[in-house]
Amino acid sequence: MPKEDQPYIGIDLGGTNVAAAVCIGDKVLSRDKTKTKADQGADAVIKRIEKVVDNVIDTARVSRDDIAGLGIGAPGAINVKKGTVIEAVNLGWSNYPLGDILQKRVKIPVVVDNDVNVGAWGAYKFGAGQGHKSMLAIFIGTGIGGGLIIDGELYHGHYFTAGEIGHTVVNAGGSLGRNTLENLASRTSIANLLAQLIHSSHESVISELTDGDLTRIRSKVISQAVQRNDELTKRVLADAARVIGISIANTVTLLSLSCVVVGGGLTEALSKTWIQQIRQSFEEHVFPPEIKKCRIVASTLGDDAGVVGAAMLARDRLGANP
Amino acid sequence: MPKEDQPYIGIDLGGTNVAAAVCIGDKVLSRDKTKTKADQGADAVIKRIEKVVDNVIDTARVSRDDIAGLGIGAPGAINVKKGTVIEAVNLGWSNYPLGDILQKRVKIPVVVDNDVNVGAWGAYKFGAGQGHKSMLAIFIGTGIGGGLIIDGELYHGHYFTAGEIGHTVVNAGGSLGRNTLENLASRTSIANLLAQLIHSSHESVISELTDGDLTRIRSKVISQAVQRNDELTKRVLADAARVIGISIANTVTLLSLSCVVVGGGLTEALSKTWIQQIRQSFEEHVFPPEIKKCRIVASTLGDDAGVVGAAMLARDRLGANP
Repeated sequence: MPKEDQPYIGIDLGGTNVAAAVCIGDKVLSRDKTKTKADQGADAVIKRIEKVVDNVIDTARVSRDDIAGLGIGAPGAINVKKGTVIEAVNLGWSNYPLGDILQKRVKIPVVVDNDVNVGAWGAYKFGAGQGHKSMLAIFIGTGIGGGLIIDGELYHGHYFTAGEIGHTVVNAGGSLGRNTLENLASRTSIANLLAQLIHSSHESVISELTDGDLTRIRSKVISQAVQRNDELTKRVLADAARVIGISIANTVTLLSLSCVVVGGGLTEALSKTWIQQIRQSFEEHVFPPEIKKCRIVASTLGDDAGVVGAAMLARDRLGANP
Repeated sequence: MPKEDQPYIGIDLGGTNVAAAVCIGDKVLSRDKTKTKADQGADAVIKRIEKVVDNVIDTARVSRDDIAGLGIGAPGAINVKKGTVIEAVNLGWSNYPLGDILQKRVKIPVVVDNDVNVGAWGAYKFGAGQGHKSMLAIFIGTGIGGGLIIDGELYHGHYFTAGEIGHTVVNAGGSLGRNTLENLASRTSIANLLAQLIHSSHESVISELTDGDLTRIRSKVISQAVQRNDELTKRVLADAARVIGISIANTVTLLSLSCVVVGGGLTEALSKTWIQQIRQSFEEHVFPPEIKKCRIVASTLGDDAGVVGAAMLARDRLGANP
């Protein structure tokens, strides 16, 4: 059968959870997940991955021999040619030959890439970025990550670290350390700023929503505060949207892109206003003005984005890019 | 004879001058230049280009039939597929089919690209960027322009405007309009700031160097002031180098490049200290820290860069990329 009709396995390896799925195209036949438990060492993590792989193959009722490949998205810098994890802080891995080791265990051809790149590939192949030759995907959550598609291919760059938009500086004038996008506009930074402001006596419904525990400001709380029309939260979010719009404008100015997909936990929790604010700032700062027509769109992918993106990346890398 | 040994014509079309040369590889056989006189209309400009082309062919003592192609770098946004000038403010052209018109007149295959991209291609093929697969070339002069080589090809992007690093925002916090790199660190901005500071009674040798006419602060004057150890000029340049280093760091963080070539009129006029200051700021701001090893180097190309780059681009685009 043609490779695009064959089942592929996609794995999303995170610092906390490992999720796996068997997919045909973007259709999920089965899914499973388990804890990563990286503190037990790489070998234990591999065994847990093997287990979820066995489980999803069983549940999907496909033969292991029919699985044409396995794609895995891992955190950190990945040498995609060798399939090694160069450095993954939250797994405690460095120069770990994930691809080779996993392939020997599961006996399926393995493709490894960075988890954010896998998300970008998903947005490009079956999400909001479809039909654009080059695009940026930016994910705003606890951190801010980005992935670049250039001329129909994931772009990794010389050191395999491309796409790190969260670590670009958006405020050179700042004297308070590195004023990077992530330091100014990630959910973590937004929550810290809100906590600080509430501590210094600013009124906010967040005190009530968190029962006074300001370490508990997650995306959901932020979203609830907006729904209750909380002025402080709205102001902090508007400032964050402004700098995100500037960073996106800088990237589009530099790369002359036709599409930017915005996703991540915080974006998913917020309403359309968030994307509108980002887009407005983008339009104010991009150059030349004619390229304002670049599309700035919310990611349409749900919880399966990581695993489906990984399965699709395996399919496309292993030679069946339709 | 193999295409790389054939002569090509390179043209550098600027708002003020048109320069032309016959080249074999990066060897210049003959050169000529004339005024552009864009105010006389496009047809007059084309006629003047024809004239310098005739002159360089004559002087090079080659037969017109042996010329395998002509490359021309023009200011503004260029549709490189169609060979049209989409918009060139300082020529007053929009949607002008430069490639087709010139080709009909000179009867040689014509390749058109943006002048900054032509400079970047020169740096990549026979300048300081040789041997790097992907790189940025940044030119600091009256404005700040950039060109990107991605995987061995000039990268133009969807709207043919890629590389506009001068128009990226480096100071989001600023309330004084768009705090772009160009507004903060071009020679024009540096000269304006120096003039302002001297007007408001800061001591500087520049008053003497310009005979008190502060509209005359060009790269040469800035360079002379540095040689005379002028504190004000040194401070303003250090600030400019810092933001240039940040913009370069942002680009390398985003694209994971192994090389950045820094050129342009101001860079050529200044000493090594300038590049060292840029490099230092780059190293402070790039992410991840491991990619500090990306090379930040001064352009080694002289006055012929534009014409030789254009000739080489014609050679490479017309099918003889060796």
